[in-house]
Amino acid sequence: MIRVGIVGGTGYTGVELLRILVLHPEVDVTEVTSRTDVGMRVDDLYPSLRGLCDVVFSLPEIENLAACDVVFFATPNGTAMNMAPDLLARGIKIIDLSADFRIKDVREWEKWYGMQHASPELIAEAVYGLPEMNRGSIKQARLVACPGCYPTAVQLGFLPLLEQGVIDGENLIADVKSGVSGAGRKAEISSLMSEAGESFKAYAVAGHRHLPEIKQGLSLVSAQSVGLTFVPHLTPMIRGIHATLYARLQQRIDLQQLFERRYQDEVFVDVLPAGKHADTRNVRGSNRCQIAVHQPQAGDTVVILSVIDNLVKGASGQAVQNMNLLFDLPETQGLQTVALYP
Amino acid sequence: MIRVGIVGGTGYTGVELLRILVLHPEVDVTEVTSRTDVGMRVDDLYPSLRGLCDVVFSLPEIENLAACDVVFFATPNGTAMNMAPDLLARGIKIIDLSADFRIKDVREWEKWYGMQHASPELIAEAVYGLPEMNRGSIKQARLVACPGCYPTAVQLGFLPLLEQGVIDGENLIADVKSGVSGAGRKAEISSLMSEAGESFKAYAVAGHRHLPEIKQGLSLVSAQSVGLTFVPHLTPMIRGIHATLYARLQQRIDLQQLFERRYQDEVFVDVLPAGKHADTRNVRGSNRCQIAVHQPQAGDTVVILSVIDNLVKGASGQAVQNMNLLFDLPETQGLQTVALYP
Amino acid sequence: MIRVGIVGGTGYTGVELLRILVLHPEVDVTEVTSRTDVGMRVDDLYPSLRGLCDVVFSLPEIENLAACDVVFFATPNGTAMNMAPDLLARGIKIIDLSADFRIKDVREWEKWYGMQHASPELIAEAVYGLPEMNRGSIKQARLVACPGCYPTAVQLGFLPLLEQGVIDGENLIADVKSGVSGAGRKAEISSLMSEAGESFKAYAVAGHRHLPEIKQGLSLVSAQSVGLTFVPHLTPMIRGIHATLYARLQQRIDLQQLFERRYQDEVFVDVLPAGKHADTRNVRGSNRCQIAVHQPQAGDTVVILSVIDNLVKGASGQAVQNMNLLFDLPETQGLQTVALYP
Amino acid sequence: MIRVGIVGGTGYTGVELLRILVLHPEVDVTEVTSRTDVGMRVDDLYPSLRGLCDVVFSLPEIENLAACDVVFFATPNGTAMNMAPDLLARGIKIIDLSADFRIKDVREWEKWYGMQHASPELIAEAVYGLPEMNRGSIKQARLVACPGCYPTAVQLGFLPLLEQGVIDGENLIADVKSGVSGAGRKAEISSLMSEAGESFKAYAVAGHRHLPEIKQGLSLVSAQSVGLTFVPHLTPMIRGIHATLYARLQQRIDLQQLFERRYQDEVFVDVLPAGKHADTRNVRGSNRCQIAVHQPQAGDTVVILSVIDNLVKGASGQAVQNMNLLFDLPETQGLQTVALYP
Repeated sequence: MIRVGIVGGTGYTGVELLRILVLHPEVDVTEVTSRTDVGMRVDDLYPSLRGLCDVVFSLPEIENLAACDVVFFATPNGTAMNMAPDLLARGIKIIDLSADFRIKDVREWEKWYGMQHASPELIAEAVYGLPEMNRGSIKQARLVACPGCYPTAVQLGFLPLLEQGVIDGENLIADVKSGVSGAGRKAEISSLMSEAGESFKAYAVAGHRHLPEIKQGLSLVSAQSVGLTFVPHLTPMIRGIHATLYARLQQRIDLQQLFERRYQDEVFVDVLPAGKHADTRNVRGSNRCQIAVHQPQAGDTVVILSVIDNLVKGASGQAVQNMNLLFDLPETQGLQTVALYP
Repeated sequence: MIRVGIVGGTGYTGVELLRILVLHPEVDVTEVTSRTDVGMRVDDLYPSLRGLCDVVFSLPEIENLAACDVVFFATPNGTAMNMAPDLLARGIKIIDLSADFRIKDVREWEKWYGMQHASPELIAEAVYGLPEMNRGSIKQARLVACPGCYPTAVQLGFLPLLEQGVIDGENLIADVKSGVSGAGRKAEISSLMSEAGESFKAYAVAGHRHLPEIKQGLSLVSAQSVGLTFVPHLTPMIRGIHATLYARLQQRIDLQQLFERRYQDEVFVDVLPAGKHADTRNVRGSNRCQIAVHQPQAGDTVVILSVIDNLVKGASGQAVQNMNLLFDLPETQGLQTVALYP
Repeated sequence: MIRVGIVGGTGYTGVELLRILVLHPEVDVTEVTSRTDVGMRVDDLYPSLRGLCDVVFSLPEIENLAACDVVFFATPNGTAMNMAPDLLARGIKIIDLSADFRIKDVREWEKWYGMQHASPELIAEAVYGLPEMNRGSIKQARLVACPGCYPTAVQLGFLPLLEQGVIDGENLIADVKSGVSGAGRKAEISSLMSEAGESFKAYAVAGHRHLPEIKQGLSLVSAQSVGLTFVPHLTPMIRGIHATLYARLQQRIDLQQLFERRYQDEVFVDVLPAGKHADTRNVRGSNRCQIAVHQPQAGDTVVILSVIDNLVKGASGQAVQNMNLLFDLPETQGLQTVALYP
Repeated sequence: MIRVGIVGGTGYTGVELLRILVLHPEVDVTEVTSRTDVGMRVDDLYPSLRGLCDVVFSLPEIENLAACDVVFFATPNGTAMNMAPDLLARGIKIIDLSADFRIKDVREWEKWYGMQHASPELIAEAVYGLPEMNRGSIKQARLVACPGCYPTAVQLGFLPLLEQGVIDGENLIADVKSGVSGAGRKAEISSLMSEAGESFKAYAVAGHRHLPEIKQGLSLVSAQSVGLTFVPHLTPMIRGIHATLYARLQQRIDLQQLFERRYQDEVFVDVLPAGKHADTRNVRGSNRCQIAVHQPQAGDTVVILSVIDNLVKGASGQAVQNMNLLFDLPETQGLQTVALYP
C-alpha cells in the first residue's frame, strides 16, 4: 500500500483527492493536514466521507508527513515550494496541484503569481503532469507539477493541431467557461450563489495566470511561436470546464481522423464522433476529457470543443493519474468511474 | 457473471442502473431495451458510457431477455406487470423499479394508478425491496418490488420510531422535497429548466401515489393504525430527496440512541451525530441514506431529517442492493462510491 | 418628494430598496451609507443601477442623514437601535429592516440576539410593520420594525385560521424553505454556490431567531396560547420563500372562503383558487404573497402554502409599503411590478 | 390608448410581452391568442399576472384582431407571414418577434428555415427592428421584424467597430452563451432541468439560423464583406445572453471612446467603464445591453463583452421599444425597470 499524505485537505481539490483515494485499492491515506481544522476528524467536516476515512486533520509539518511515500499538495500557491525540498530530501515523492512548479521561467512565474519563488532550483526538475504529453517523464519524476484546470482542457484541445502544424499558431483563441468550484472553497462574495448563480460573465480578460502556462505548454509541441487570446468565464454550475477553441487552418486535412489517431491510446481522452457536441455533464465526476472537432461551413476556422470536470481531470483525478504513473500502477486504477448523469 | 437485462433503458433510472452495473464486477449487462431507440448504441444516447458499454438497444420482448438471469424494469408503471409472468416462468428473477407490485391491496393500487392490474396473482409473492426492513425475504424472492423514492426516505426516517411505538402514529407529517430528476426523462413543460429552475413549489397536496405505499409500509411495523399527511415538493436541483418528518412523542426516550441502534448494522443508513443536519449533497451519487434526529426545544415534537439520492438509494442503487441480496453477493458490491461533493 | 436615506446600502436588502426606490415617483434617495465602500458610487458597486442613481456611499453618521425625511436601516442587527434615538429626536422617521425592534419582550430579544438592547425605551413604541395586520398603527408610527422574511410568509398563512379560532394553535408546524439570498451578501463558505447549489438542507432546527417573532405575532391574533415547531430550510435558488404550514382543524369550515374574505381588500396578498399550488417564481421580484389552501383527503389537517419573494414582501418591498403608509401615499406606489417569470 | 393584440401568448416571449404591457400606461391589451389554451384566462395559465390581466385566450383569427392598433407575433416561425397581409390591409401595424421577415434574401431565408415564404412581397418593406441601427425607418414602418436574441447582442457589440472600419471584418468570431429560456416554452427533453442544469455545451456549431441574420446586419454597416464564425452555447441559467466577440484590429484607436461615443445617446445600450466586465445578472429583466471593451495585453485582438436579457432586449422589451417608436411615444415608456439583482 502506498502511504499518501495530503497537504491542504479542506479545499475542493483536497476533498476530491479523498473521494478518489479512499476507494483506491493500493492507497492508504495516512495524513491529511489543515492548519485551520487541526484536531477535527476529516469526515466531520465532510460527511460524504463518513465510514470511509477516520483520519484527523494534522498540522502541515514535515514530521507529520515523514512516513508518507507521496505527498499531494492541494494548497494555495506558495506552500508546496516551501515544503518540497525537505520532503524530496527524505525520498518522498511530490504531486503538486498548485501552480508552484508549473512555469519553467521563474521570472514569468514571479510576475504572474506576485511572490518570490522559494525553491527555484527545483523548477527545472519538476515534470509537468499532463500524461497525454509527458507520460514517460512523469514515470521517472520525483516532483510532478499538475496542470491547472483551464490549461488541461485547452492544451488537450489544441495539441493535435499544433503537433501536426496544421493551424496558424500565432492567433489562437480559447474561450473557456468554468463552473464555480474552480474558485475554490473560499469565503468570497463573488462566489456566493446569489452572485454567481443564474448569471454568466467573463473575468480577467486583461490577463489570467493560466495564460503563460498554456502558452508554455503549446509552445513545446509547436514548431512556430504561439499567440493566444484566452478569455475565462464563470458559468452558473458547480463542476465542469468547457473550452471552445478557435484557430485558422493552414492546410486541408481530415481533422476528425487527426484527433482520433492522436488520442486512440489515451483512455482518458475521448474524441466524440464527427458532428457531436461535447457536454460537461457527460464528464462530471469522471477523469475524462471529451473532445468534439468542428469546421463550420467547411471554412478556414476549426472549432474544438473540449470538456473536463475541473476537479477531476482538471485537478485531483489527473493528480491520481500521475500517482499511478509514478508508482507503476495501472493508469486507470481508482479512476474507473462513470460520469454522474443526470 | 450475472447476465442482466434492463427493460426501459432510456430513462433516468435506466441510465443510472447502467452507471452502476457497468462497473459491477459480477455483472454483465447483456440486454437493454428501448422501444423508441431500438438499434441505437446505448453509449450514443448516453456519451457518459462511451467505452464502458457496447450494447445496442433492443425491443422489449421476452425472447430478447430469455438468456438473462435477472431483469430490471426501469419502465413507466404498467409494463412490468405484463411481462413478469413469462419471465418468472423461465426462471428469470425480476427487480421492478416501477410501482406495479408495491401495493398489496390491488384495488387500492388500481385506484391510485388508474389501470387494471395485469398480474394480480403475483402481488402477494412480490417482496417489497427495502432491505433495511425485508432483507430476509428479499434473499428468497423471485420478484422484488423496489420502493419509490419518497417512500424510501420517509420510511427509513419513521421506522425506528414506529417499531418502538414511541410516537403518535395517527398524526404523522412528511414534508418532502425532491430534485427534478424524480419527474423522469419525459418531455414535459413543468420539468423544463425555465419552469422548475429558481423556483420552489408543492404539488399533489390533495394526494400523491406514494401516500398509500408509505402508509402500507409504516403500518406493517406499527402496532397502531397510521395516519399520514404527505406533501411532496419540487426543489430546483437535479438529484436528491430531503424528507422532514414530524411526529408527536408519546414517551421520553433517547432518540439519538434509538436511531443509532436501529441502524448500527446497516451500511447504507448513516445516523448523523446529534445536533447535525442532513444535506442532500452528501449523498449525491451514493446509495446512502443519512438521517439526523432532532427534538426542538426539548418539546413533544420529534423532527427527523432523512436524505437520499432519489436515483440511487431511491431507485437504481437500491435495486442493485436488492440484486446483490438475490444473488448472495456482498450487499455493497458495485455500490461503494463516495458522494460527489461539491 | 420624500428625502430617503438608506443605512447599509451594500447588502441585498439595501440594493433591493434602491431597485424599488429609484423608480418611486415620490422619492428622492439622497443618502446611502456604507462603512466599507464610502466614497464609491453606488452604481459602481451595483451596475444594474447605472444611470438611475448617482449617489456616493457616505459614512453612517447622523449628520449625513439629518436632511432625510425617513431613514431605512438595511443593516445587520444592532445598528438601528443605536442610531434610532438621535434620528427620531430630529423628527426623522425610521423603517428598520433589521430585527432590533421586532420583539416586544426585551429579555427574549437579548437571549436570541446575543447582545444588550441599546434603546429598550423605544421598543414599546415601535410598530410591527406587517400592514395586513397593523395598517392603522403603521400610519401613525415614527418607528416601524419590519417583519423578517420567514415571519411574513408564516404569519400571513396562519393569520386567518388563528383569528377565527378554527385550528389547534398549540401544535402548529411551519416547514419553510428559503432561497440563499436570505443569508445576505456575506462572504461565508456555507453560502458559496459550490456549497448551497444543487443541495437541500434544513438548518437551525434546534431554534431559529424568527421563532419568537412568529410566535409573538401569532399570539396577538389568537385567543389561545400558540405552540409552534418551525424548521427553516435552504433551497438552491436565489430568491423566494415557500412556507408549508400544518395545523389541526377544530371545526369544519369553508377554508377557501375564509382566506378569500380575510384578504379580499389586501392588494399584496393573493389567495389562489381552490386546488392550486403556490410557486415562488410567480412572486419573484414582486411584493405579493400568494397563498393556497388545502385540506388533504378532507381530513383534519389543513395545509397552507404561502410564498413570497424574501427580498421584496419579505424585506424591502414591505418596507416601502410601510413607507407609503407612513407618508399617506397610495400603498402600491412604486410596488406595481409583475413577477419575473420565467 | 393603443389597442394591442398578441398572437401566441403562451410562450415565453408572449408572457414577457404581457409582463411589460400590462403596466404600460398607453397600452390596453385587448386580445391574446392561443390555439391550445383558447377559453382559458391568461392569468390562470400565468398566475404572476393575476389581478393585472383579465383577458381570455382567443383563437388566432383575423376577426379577433380586427380592432387592434398593433399586433405582436410571439409565435413560432411561419405564422406571422401568413396573417400579415390581412392585418396590414386593415391598417393594423405588425411587430413580429419571429424570424419571418428578418432576412431580406428570401432564398437564404427558405434555406435556413426550411419552408416556403408565404408573403415574400412584404419582405422588402419590413424594417429590421434594431432601434440603435434603424430608428428612423422604424418610426415610419407598418411591419417591424424584431431581431433575434443572439443577433441583438452580437450586432450591438460589433457595430461600432465595423461602422468605423477598424477591424478585419472577414474573420469575426462570436462565442455566445444563452440561458435556457431561449429555447422557448416547449416540451423538449434537451430543455429539461435534469438535462440543461449543471451542464454547459455548445450546439449547432455547424450552422445556426441566426448566422445569416447577423451577417446581413453586420454587412449593412460594414464597407467590407463580413465573415463570421458563430458558436452558440447553452448555459445553465434561465435568462441572459453573453456574447464574447473577437476581432483583429487593423488600426490603433481608443476603443473605449469609440464605443462610448457611438452609444452616448442610446438609453438602452450602456458602455461600461474601461476594465470592467459585463455580467448578465445586471441586465436581468431589463431592456438594457451592457458592453465592455477589452484589448488583452494591448495586442491586436479586441474582445467585446455584450450582455442582454434574451427575453427583454433580445425579444419582448425590444418589441415594445419598437412599438413606442411606431406610435411616437417616449422610447423608454413601460421599459424603465431595474435589473433584478440578485
